[in-house]
Amino acid sequence: MSFTEFPSRLLEDAVNEFASLPGVGRKTAFRLVMNLLRRDPEEVKRFGESIIRLHGEIHYCKICNNISDTEICSICSDTKRDKTVICVVENIQDVMALENTRQFRGMYHVLGGIISPINGIGPSDLKIESLEEKIKAGGINEIIFALSTTMEGDTTNYYLYRKLSKYDIAISTLARGVAIGDELEYTDEITLGRAINNRNPYQQ
Amino acid sequence: MSFTEFPSRLLEDAVNEFASLPGVGRKTAFRLVMNLLRRDPEEVKRFGESIIRLHGEIHYCKICNNISDTEICSICSDTKRDKTVICVVENIQDVMALENTRQFRGMYHVLGGIISPINGIGPSDLKIESLEEKIKAGGINEIIFALSTTMEGDTTNYYLYRKLSKYDIAISTLARGVAIGDELEYTDEITLGRAINNRNPYQQ
Repeated sequence: MSFTEFPSRLLEDAVNEFASLPGVGRKTAFRLVMNLLRRDPEEVKRFGESIIRLHGEIHYCKICNNISDTEICSICSDTKRDKTVICVVENIQDVMALENTRQFRGMYHVLGGIISPINGIGPSDLKIESLEEKIKAGGINEIIFALSTTMEGDTTNYYLYRKLSKYDIAISTLARGVAIGDELEYTDEITLGRAINNRNPYQQ
Repeated sequence: MSFTEFPSRLLEDAVNEFASLPGVGRKTAFRLVMNLLRRDPEEVKRFGESIIRLHGEIHYCKICNNISDTEICSICSDTKRDKTVICVVENIQDVMALENTRQFRGMYHVLGGIISPINGIGPSDLKIESLEEKIKAGGINEIIFALSTTMEGDTTNYYLYRKLSKYDIAISTLARGVAIGDELEYTDEITLGRAINNRNPYQQ
Protein backbone atom coordinates (compact mmCIF):
# COMPACT_ATOMS: atom_id res chain seq x y z
CA MET A 1 0.00 0.00 0.00
CA SER A 2 1.35 3.40 -0.91
CA PHE A 3 -0.01 6.42 0.87
CA THR A 4 -0.66 8.58 -2.13
CA GLU A 5 -3.56 10.59 -0.80
CA PHE A 6 -3.33 12.11 2.63
CA PRO A 7 -6.45 13.45 4.30
CA SER A 8 -4.42 16.29 5.77
CA ARG A 9 -1.65 18.52 4.43
CA LEU A 10 -0.17 18.86 7.93
CA LEU A 11 -0.03 15.10 8.29
CA GLU A 12 1.57 14.75 4.88
CA ASP A 13 4.18 17.41 5.69
CA ALA A 14 5.18 15.66 8.89
CA VAL A 15 5.34 12.26 7.15
CA ASN A 16 7.52 13.76 4.40
CA GLU A 17 9.90 15.21 6.97
CA PHE A 18 10.31 11.91 8.78
CA ALA A 19 10.65 10.03 5.49
CA SER A 20 13.59 12.30 4.62
CA LEU A 21 15.62 10.69 7.42
CA PRO A 22 18.08 7.94 6.44
CA GLY A 23 16.60 4.46 6.65
CA VAL A 24 13.08 5.72 7.27
CA GLY A 25 10.61 4.80 4.53
CA ARG A 26 7.22 6.42 4.02
CA LYS A 27 5.41 3.66 5.85
CA THR A 28 7.64 3.92 8.90
CA ALA A 29 7.41 7.71 8.76
CA PHE A 30 3.63 7.46 8.80
CA ARG A 31 3.73 5.10 11.76
CA LEU A 32 6.00 7.48 13.67
CA VAL A 33 3.75 10.47 12.95
CA MET A 34 0.66 8.54 14.02
CA ASN A 35 2.47 7.73 17.26
CA LEU A 36 3.13 11.44 17.81
CA LEU A 37 -0.51 12.26 17.13
CA ARG A 38 -1.61 9.94 19.90
CA ARG A 39 0.61 11.70 22.46
CA ASP A 40 0.01 14.70 24.67
CA PRO A 41 0.34 17.98 22.76
CA GLU A 42 2.94 19.20 25.28
CA GLU A 43 5.11 16.17 24.66
CA VAL A 44 4.94 16.63 20.90
CA LYS A 45 5.74 20.32 21.21
CA ARG A 46 8.83 19.43 23.25
CA PHE A 47 9.88 16.97 20.53
CA GLY A 48 9.58 19.62 17.83
CA GLU A 49 11.39 22.20 19.91
CA SER A 50 14.28 19.86 20.65
CA ILE A 51 14.83 19.59 16.90
CA ILE A 52 14.66 23.34 16.35
CA ARG A 53 17.04 24.06 19.23
CA LEU A 54 19.48 21.49 17.89
CA HIS A 55 20.59 23.79 15.12
CA GLY A 56 19.85 27.09 16.73
CA GLU A 57 21.70 26.66 19.98
CA ILE A 58 24.32 23.99 19.54
CA HIS A 59 27.99 24.95 19.26
CA TYR A 60 31.04 23.36 17.75
CA CYS A 61 34.01 23.62 20.08
CA LYS A 62 36.41 26.29 18.84
CA ILE A 63 39.40 24.14 19.76
CA CYS A 64 38.54 20.58 18.74
CA ASN A 65 35.33 20.99 16.63
CA ASN A 66 33.47 18.60 18.92
CA ILE A 67 29.81 19.30 19.49
CA SER A 68 29.11 21.34 22.61
CA ASP A 69 26.56 23.48 24.43
CA THR A 70 29.29 26.05 25.04
CA GLU A 71 32.01 27.69 22.92
CA ILE A 72 34.68 25.40 24.35
CA CYS A 73 33.65 21.78 24.92
CA SER A 74 33.85 20.00 28.25
CA ILE A 75 36.87 17.97 27.13
CA CYS A 76 38.93 20.97 25.97
CA SER A 77 38.07 22.91 29.12
CA ASP A 78 38.98 20.00 31.43
CA THR A 79 42.27 21.01 33.10
CA LYS A 80 42.97 17.44 34.19
CA ARG A 81 43.40 16.16 30.66
CA ASP A 82 46.73 15.72 28.92
CA LYS A 83 47.08 18.63 26.50
CA THR A 84 50.24 17.19 24.89
CA VAL A 85 48.41 14.36 23.09
CA ILE A 86 45.85 14.97 20.36
CA CYS A 87 43.68 12.18 19.01
CA VAL A 88 42.53 12.90 15.44
CA VAL A 89 39.07 11.53 14.65
CA GLU A 90 36.63 11.76 11.79
CA ASN A 91 33.52 12.91 13.63
CA ILE A 92 31.71 13.50 16.90
CA GLN A 93 30.48 9.92 17.14
CA ASP A 94 34.11 8.79 17.24
CA VAL A 95 34.88 11.18 20.13
CA MET A 96 31.95 9.68 22.02
CA ALA A 97 33.02 6.14 21.21
CA LEU A 98 36.55 6.78 22.49
CA GLU A 99 35.30 8.65 25.57
CA ASN A 100 33.12 5.69 26.44
CA THR A 101 36.20 3.45 26.70
CA ARG A 102 37.50 5.72 29.52
CA GLN A 103 41.04 4.84 28.37
CA PHE A 104 42.12 8.07 26.78
CA ARG A 105 42.81 11.22 28.79
CA GLY A 106 44.26 13.44 26.06
CA MET A 107 42.60 15.90 23.69
CA TYR A 108 40.73 15.43 20.42
CA HIS A 109 40.69 17.02 17.04
CA VAL A 110 37.59 16.36 14.95
CA LEU A 111 38.36 16.51 11.21
CA GLY A 112 34.71 16.66 10.22
CA GLY A 113 35.10 13.85 7.69
CA ILE A 114 37.78 11.85 5.89
CA ILE A 115 39.31 12.25 2.46
CA SER A 116 37.00 10.54 0.02
CA PRO A 117 37.43 11.38 -3.66
CA ILE A 118 34.35 9.31 -4.50
CA ASN A 119 32.23 11.59 -2.31
CA GLY A 120 34.06 14.68 -3.46
CA ILE A 121 35.68 15.27 -0.06
CA GLY A 122 39.22 16.58 -0.34
CA PRO A 123 41.73 17.74 2.31
CA SER A 124 40.50 21.34 2.06
CA ASP A 125 37.02 20.24 3.22
CA LEU A 126 38.47 18.95 6.48
CA LYS A 127 39.83 20.76 9.54
CA ILE A 128 43.45 19.91 8.75
CA GLU A 129 44.87 23.41 8.74
CA SER A 130 43.74 24.13 12.29
CA LEU A 131 45.35 20.84 13.39
CA GLU A 132 48.64 21.95 11.87
CA GLU A 133 48.29 25.34 13.57
CA LYS A 134 47.95 23.61 16.94
CA ILE A 135 51.15 21.65 16.32
CA LYS A 136 52.99 24.77 15.15
CA ALA A 137 51.90 26.54 18.31
CA GLY A 138 53.90 23.93 20.25
CA GLY A 139 53.30 21.92 23.40
CA ILE A 140 52.13 18.82 21.49
CA ASN A 141 54.14 15.62 21.92
CA GLU A 142 51.99 13.12 20.11
CA ILE A 143 49.31 12.92 17.47
CA ILE A 144 47.18 9.76 17.35
CA PHE A 145 45.43 8.94 14.09
CA ALA A 146 42.14 7.30 15.11
CA LEU A 147 40.40 7.07 11.77
CA SER A 148 38.34 4.22 10.34
CA THR A 149 40.34 1.32 8.94
CA THR A 150 38.90 1.83 5.50
CA MET A 151 40.52 2.98 2.28
CA GLU A 152 39.36 6.54 2.98
CA GLY A 153 40.78 6.34 6.50
CA ASP A 154 44.11 5.07 5.21
CA THR A 155 44.23 7.79 2.56
CA THR A 156 43.59 10.43 5.21
CA ASN A 157 46.25 8.90 7.50
CA TYR A 158 48.74 9.02 4.67
CA TYR A 159 47.88 12.62 3.81
CA LEU A 160 48.12 13.71 7.43
CA TYR A 161 51.39 11.87 7.92
CA ARG A 162 52.99 13.61 4.94
CA LYS A 163 51.77 16.95 6.25
CA LEU A 164 52.75 16.48 9.89
CA SER A 165 55.85 14.24 9.89
CA LYS A 166 58.14 17.26 9.50
CA TYR A 167 57.26 18.39 13.01
CA ASP A 168 59.08 17.01 16.01
CA ILE A 169 56.18 14.96 17.38
CA ALA A 170 55.39 11.28 17.69
CA ILE A 171 52.72 10.09 15.26
CA SER A 172 50.82 6.95 16.15
CA THR A 173 47.74 5.09 15.02
CA LEU A 174 45.23 2.93 16.84
CA ALA A 175 46.49 -0.63 17.27
CA ARG A 176 45.25 -3.05 14.66
CA GLY A 177 42.69 -4.74 16.74
CA VAL A 178 40.02 -2.75 15.12
CA ALA A 179 38.99 -5.13 12.36
CA ILE A 180 39.63 -4.02 8.78
CA GLY A 181 36.48 -2.51 7.33
CA ASP A 182 34.93 -1.72 10.71
CA GLU A 183 33.72 1.73 11.63
CA LEU A 184 34.83 3.11 14.99
CA GLU A 185 31.33 4.13 15.90
CA TYR A 186 30.20 0.49 15.99
CA THR A 187 33.29 -1.11 17.54
CA ASP A 188 32.83 -2.61 20.99
CA GLU A 189 34.45 -0.62 23.79
CA ILE A 190 36.92 -3.29 24.94
CA THR A 191 38.45 -3.64 21.48
CA LEU A 192 38.48 0.10 21.10
CA GLY A 193 40.01 0.60 24.56
CA ARG A 194 42.79 -1.89 23.81
CA ALA A 195 43.36 -0.36 20.43
CA ILE A 196 44.04 3.07 21.84
CA ASN A 197 46.26 1.72 24.65
CA ASN A 198 48.35 -0.37 22.23
CA ARG A 199 48.71 2.36 19.68
CA ASN A 200 51.76 2.03 17.43
CA PRO A 201 54.04 4.48 15.65
CA TYR A 202 52.57 5.34 12.30
CA GLN A 203 54.17 3.43 9.44
CA GLN A 204 53.74 4.18 5.78
CA MET B 1 28.58 0.67 22.40
CA SER B 2 26.16 2.63 24.50
CA PHE B 3 26.15 6.39 24.30
CA THR B 4 26.19 7.14 27.98
CA GLU B 5 28.00 10.44 27.88
CA PHE B 6 26.85 13.07 25.46
CA PRO B 7 29.06 16.08 24.81
CA SER B 8 25.94 18.24 24.58
CA ARG B 9 22.68 18.39 26.49
CA LEU B 10 20.84 19.62 23.40
CA LEU B 11 22.10 16.66 21.43
CA GLU B 12 21.10 14.28 24.19
CA ASP B 13 17.61 15.78 24.40
CA ALA B 14 17.05 15.34 20.68
CA VAL B 15 18.36 11.77 20.76
CA ASN B 16 16.05 10.97 23.68
CA GLU B 17 13.05 12.34 21.82
CA PHE B 18 13.76 10.27 18.71
CA ALA B 19 14.47 7.19 20.83
CA SER B 20 10.97 7.54 22.32
CA LEU B 21 9.47 6.67 18.93
CA PRO B 22 8.32 3.07 18.41
CA GLY B 23 10.98 0.85 16.85
CA VAL B 24 13.70 3.50 17.16
CA GLY B 25 16.61 2.50 19.43
CA ARG B 26 19.14 4.92 20.87
CA LYS B 27 21.69 4.17 18.19
CA THR B 28 19.25 4.81 15.39
CA ALA B 29 18.03 7.93 17.19
CA PHE B 30 21.58 9.19 17.37
CA ARG B 31 22.12 8.50 13.68
CA LEU B 32 18.95 10.42 12.80
CA VAL B 33 19.94 13.39 14.94
CA MET B 34 23.43 13.46 13.40
CA ASN B 35 21.76 13.50 9.99
CA LEU B 36 19.68 16.52 11.04
CA LEU B 37 22.81 18.27 12.32
CA ARG B 38 24.43 17.99 8.91
CA ARG B 39 21.49 19.69 7.21
CA ASP B 40 20.71 23.34 6.56
CA PRO B 41 19.34 25.07 9.67
CA GLU B 42 16.24 26.16 7.72
CA GLU B 43 15.45 22.59 6.78
CA VAL B 44 15.78 21.41 10.36
CA LYS B 45 13.60 24.26 11.60
CA ARG B 46 10.91 23.22 9.11
CA PHE B 47 11.15 19.64 10.42
CA GLY B 48 10.65 20.76 14.00
CA GLU B 49 7.80 23.08 13.09
CA SER B 50 5.98 20.38 11.15
CA ILE B 51 5.92 18.32 14.34
CA ILE B 52 4.69 21.21 16.46
CA ARG B 53 1.97 22.15 13.96
CA LEU B 54 0.84 18.54 13.84
CA HIS B 55 -0.86 18.79 17.19
CA GLY B 56 -1.57 22.47 17.23
CA GLU B 57 -3.37 22.82 13.94
CA ILE B 58 -4.72 19.44 12.91
CA HIS B 59 -8.45 18.70 13.15
CA TYR B 60 -10.50 15.58 13.48
CA CYS B 61 -13.52 15.70 11.14
CA LYS B 62 -16.67 16.44 13.12
CA ILE B 63 -18.64 13.96 11.04
CA CYS B 64 -16.41 10.90 10.55
CA ASN B 65 -13.44 11.54 12.98
CA ASN B 66 -10.97 11.28 10.11
CA ILE B 67 -7.93 13.49 10.33
CA SER B 68 -8.31 16.78 8.48
CA ASP B 69 -6.94 20.29 8.04
CA THR B 70 -10.49 21.64 8.26
CA GLU B 71 -13.45 21.00 10.56
CA ILE B 72 -15.12 18.75 7.99
CA CYS B 73 -12.78 16.44 6.06
CA SER B 74 -12.50 16.36 2.28
CA ILE B 75 -14.43 13.07 2.06
CA CYS B 76 -17.40 14.24 4.15
CA SER B 77 -17.57 17.54 2.27
CA ASP B 78 -17.43 15.84 -1.16
CA THR B 79 -20.96 16.17 -2.61
CA LYS B 80 -20.30 13.46 -5.21
CA ARG B 81 -19.95 10.70 -2.64
CA ASP B 82 -22.74 8.34 -1.63
CA LYS B 83 -24.05 9.53 1.74
CA THR B 84 -26.27 6.46 2.21
CA VAL B 85 -23.39 4.04 2.84
CA ILE B 86 -21.07 4.27 5.85
CA CYS B 87 -17.92 2.19 6.12
CA VAL B 88 -16.88 1.67 9.76
CA VAL B 89 -13.12 1.49 10.28
CA GLU B 90 -10.75 1.37 13.22
CA ASN B 91 -8.46 4.25 12.38
CA ILE B 92 -7.24 6.84 9.90
CA GLN B 93 -4.76 4.46 8.29
CA ASP B 94 -7.69 2.23 7.31
CA VAL B 95 -9.50 5.15 5.66
CA MET B 96 -6.35 5.84 3.67
CA ALA B 97 -5.92 2.17 2.73
CA LEU B 98 -9.52 1.94 1.48
CA GLU B 99 -9.29 5.29 -0.33
CA ASN B 100 -6.19 4.07 -2.13
CA THR B 101 -8.21 1.20 -3.64
CA ARG B 102 -10.44 3.82 -5.36
CA GLN B 103 -13.28 1.29 -5.13
CA PHE B 104 -15.43 2.84 -2.43
CA ARG B 105 -17.38 6.04 -2.97
CA GLY B 106 -19.40 6.14 0.25
CA MET B 107 -18.67 7.74 3.61
CA TYR B 108 -16.54 6.61 6.56
CA HIS B 109 -16.88 6.45 10.29
CA VAL B 110 -13.62 6.16 12.25
CA LEU B 111 -14.13 4.38 15.59
CA GLY B 112 -10.74 5.42 16.94
CA GLY B 113 -9.88 1.86 17.97
CA ILE B 114 -11.45 -1.53 18.47
CA ILE B 115 -12.79 -3.24 21.55
CA SER B 116 -9.84 -4.87 23.29
CA PRO B 117 -10.31 -5.91 26.93
CA ILE B 118 -6.62 -6.84 27.12
CA ASN B 119 -5.66 -3.23 26.34
CA GLY B 120 -8.46 -1.84 28.48
CA ILE B 121 -10.43 -0.50 25.50
CA GLY B 122 -14.18 -0.85 25.92
CA PRO B 123 -17.12 0.30 23.75
CA SER B 124 -17.32 3.60 25.64
CA ASP B 125 -13.79 4.49 24.50
CA LEU B 126 -14.86 4.31 20.87
CA LYS B 127 -16.98 6.62 18.73
CA ILE B 128 -19.96 4.25 18.67
CA GLU B 129 -22.63 6.59 20.00
CA SER B 130 -22.08 9.12 17.24
CA LEU B 131 -22.40 6.30 14.69
CA GLU B 132 -25.76 5.33 16.14
CA GLU B 133 -26.84 8.98 16.07
CA LYS B 134 -26.09 9.14 12.35
CA ILE B 135 -28.26 6.08 11.71
CA LYS B 136 -31.06 7.45 13.88
CA ALA B 137 -30.96 10.70 11.90
CA GLY B 138 -31.91 8.65 8.82
CA GLY B 139 -30.79 8.56 5.21
CA ILE B 140 -28.41 5.62 5.76
CA ASN B 141 -29.06 2.43 3.78
CA GLU B 142 -26.00 0.38 4.59
CA ILE B 143 -23.25 0.06 7.19
CA ILE B 144 -20.09 -1.82 6.20
CA PHE B 145 -17.94 -3.23 8.99
CA ALA B 146 -14.36 -2.94 7.74
CA LEU B 147 -12.45 -3.94 10.86
CA SER B 148 -9.42 -6.17 11.21
CA THR B 149 -10.08 -9.92 11.00
CA THR B 150 -8.72 -10.42 14.50
CA MET B 151 -10.42 -11.45 17.71
CA GLU B 152 -10.74 -7.78 18.68
CA GLY B 153 -12.20 -6.95 15.28
CA ASP B 154 -14.71 -9.79 15.54
CA THR B 155 -15.68 -8.72 19.06
CA THR B 156 -16.24 -5.16 17.87
CA ASN B 157 -18.25 -6.39 14.87
CA TYR B 158 -20.45 -8.43 17.18
CA TYR B 159 -20.97 -5.53 19.58
CA LEU B 160 -21.83 -3.15 16.75
CA TYR B 161 -24.16 -5.67 15.15
CA ARG B 162 -26.12 -6.11 18.40
CA LYS B 163 -26.37 -2.35 18.76
CA LEU B 164 -27.32 -1.54 15.17
CA SER B 165 -29.33 -4.50 13.90
CA LYS B 166 -32.57 -3.05 15.24
CA TYR B 167 -32.42 -0.29 12.67
CA ASP B 168 -33.76 -0.79 9.16
CA ILE B 169 -30.41 -0.82 7.40
CA ALA B 170 -28.26 -3.40 5.64
CA ILE B 171 -25.18 -4.47 7.61
CA SER B 172 -22.27 -6.01 5.73
CA THR B 173 -18.63 -6.89 6.28
CA LEU B 174 -15.64 -6.97 3.98
CA ALA B 175 -15.44 -10.21 1.99
CA ARG B 176 -13.12 -12.73 3.57
CA GLY B 177 -11.10 -15.04 1.41
CA VAL B 178 -7.73 -15.87 0.02
CA ALA B 179 -5.75 -12.67 -0.58
CA ILE B 180 -4.60 -11.88 -4.10
CA GLY B 181 -1.13 -13.35 -4.57
CA ASP B 182 -1.45 -15.78 -1.65
CA GLU B 183 -0.61 -19.42 -2.08
CA LEU B 184 -3.27 -21.86 -0.86
CA GLU B 185 -0.63 -24.00 0.77
CA TYR B 186 0.25 -21.19 3.18
CA THR B 187 -3.23 -19.85 3.79
CA ASP B 188 -4.57 -20.55 7.27
CA GLU B 189 -7.36 -23.10 7.48
CA ILE B 190 -10.05 -20.76 8.80
CA THR B 191 -9.57 -18.36 5.92
CA LEU B 192 -9.47 -21.24 3.45
CA GLY B 193 -12.57 -22.83 5.01
CA ARG B 194 -14.51 -19.60 4.70
CA ALA B 195 -13.25 -19.07 1.19
CA ILE B 196 -14.55 -22.40 0.00
CA ASN B 197 -17.89 -21.99 1.76
CA ASN B 198 -18.41 -18.50 0.38
CA ARG B 199 -17.26 -19.44 -3.11
CA ASN B 200 -18.43 -17.31 -6.01
CA PRO B 201 -19.42 -18.20 -9.60
CA TYR B 202 -16.30 -18.25 -11.73
CA GLN B 203 -15.88 -15.22 -13.91
CA GLN B 204 -13.37 -14.97 -16.70
